[in-house]
Amino acid sequence: MIDTIGFDGDDTLWHNESLFSMTQERFRALLAHAADPDDLDRRLLDAERANLKVYGYGIKGFVLSMIESAISVTDGRVPARDLQSLIDFGKAMLEHPVELLPDIADVVEALSHRYRLILITKGDLFDQESKIARSGLAGRFDAVEIVSEKDSASYRRVLERHSVAPDRFVMVGNSVRSDILPVLAIGGHAVHIPYAITWAHEEAEPPDEHYRRIDSVLDLPPLLAAW
Amino acid sequence: MIDTIGFDGDDTLWHNESLFSMTQERFRALLAHAADPDDLDRRLLDAERANLKVYGYGIKGFVLSMIESAISVTDGRVPARDLQSLIDFGKAMLEHPVELLPDIADVVEALSHRYRLILITKGDLFDQESKIARSGLAGRFDAVEIVSEKDSASYRRVLERHSVAPDRFVMVGNSVRSDILPVLAIGGHAVHIPYAITWAHEEAEPPDEHYRRIDSVLDLPPLLAAW
Repeated sequence: MIDTIGFDGDDTLWHNESLFSMTQERFRALLAHAADPDDLDRRLLDAERANLKVYGYGIKGFVLSMIESAISVTDGRVPARDLQSLIDFGKAMLEHPVELLPDIADVVEALSHRYRLILITKGDLFDQESKIARSGLAGRFDAVEIVSEKDSASYRRVLERHSVAPDRFVMVGNSVRSDILPVLAIGGHAVHIPYAITWAHEEAEPPDEHYRRIDSVLDLPPLLAAW
Repeated sequence: MIDTIGFDGDDTLWHNESLFSMTQERFRALLAHAADPDDLDRRLLDAERANLKVYGYGIKGFVLSMIESAISVTDGRVPARDLQSLIDFGKAMLEHPVELLPDIADVVEALSHRYRLILITKGDLFDQESKIARSGLAGRFDAVEIVSEKDSASYRRVLERHSVAPDRFVMVGNSVRSDILPVLAIGGHAVHIPYAITWAHEEAEPPDEHYRRIDSVLDLPPLLAAW
């Protein structure tokens, strides 16, 4: 029945959130003299939210938001060399080796013989392409789709482009909001594999016969075979 | 013979380089106390080149390169408020209204009735999608392809994806390097419409029967009809 699998990239195939967490830790340490960690986190989150509509998702926008937060929290007294450090943190993120999650390489390889695989990621085109190339997984996927927003309209466009009926499609990812709900909304299947670092607000589980939650990607092949 | 037209976006359909020039002028004015304009231009260009492999093309990377240049040219003494100004310049670019080049709206509308039109642009996914939406031209195009690099491999992928034979395809754009040479290399046709602001090194004209150079997009429909 299901013949096409969509895989999310960040925090489904490879680690990503841990890179942001690590950098945010360095950001807090750099500005510890000016504000306490909670205040810094709040200001950075406010800046990221305010900038999302002009920058979109990705590391470059994150760095620009860190710089703005550092300037505002110090009332403009932050030394330029500290802002250069923030730029260097961003470059380190962009050049960081791509680290696959456990068992991903084996499971993706096995599934690639039985299913059509499409990598569907959100974010910065250049950075995502670079990560896909460095992941060593590119050859396992029949197609790669990088979108600026993962909503139902985006998934519908991707499936139409590849002539895939939604009921023959399953999306696998770590985000209920981006990988699960919009796919269920257009009649597709969805498998949620939570990432170790969970967001502040715990995500609700959608009650849907086309939906499953698993703890390890190793559970994916038998689940698909049984569905 | 030709049934599909690829259009470049930046400086072919809408103004783009003029925005960068305007911002670079403001950058020079902001740092006039620290360095002369030529030195600033050279440092910024060096930073952009060095950063291209981590940032790719686009405004966010340009802003980060301006910040780095401002820090290095002042030996770290640039006040943080001036760096905030550079961030604000970048936001102004990202939010700037999309200004179509003369006659583009009419010619694209007329061609859309006779040809399949594909918008093929390079750069930041989020910014390019935003510009396409704001341009008012999205409805005229049968497809939009945003790529991170315009080389022959990218064009080949786009044409395969849309099942277009290269000899039935013509690419229209302002850059010999990005819009003309890689398309001629895979057997396609190409029409060069130079933009008013030409880059420092004047570009060579390729001697190829599949190539034409025109001064106005108004010359495009009769050229295609005659080809």
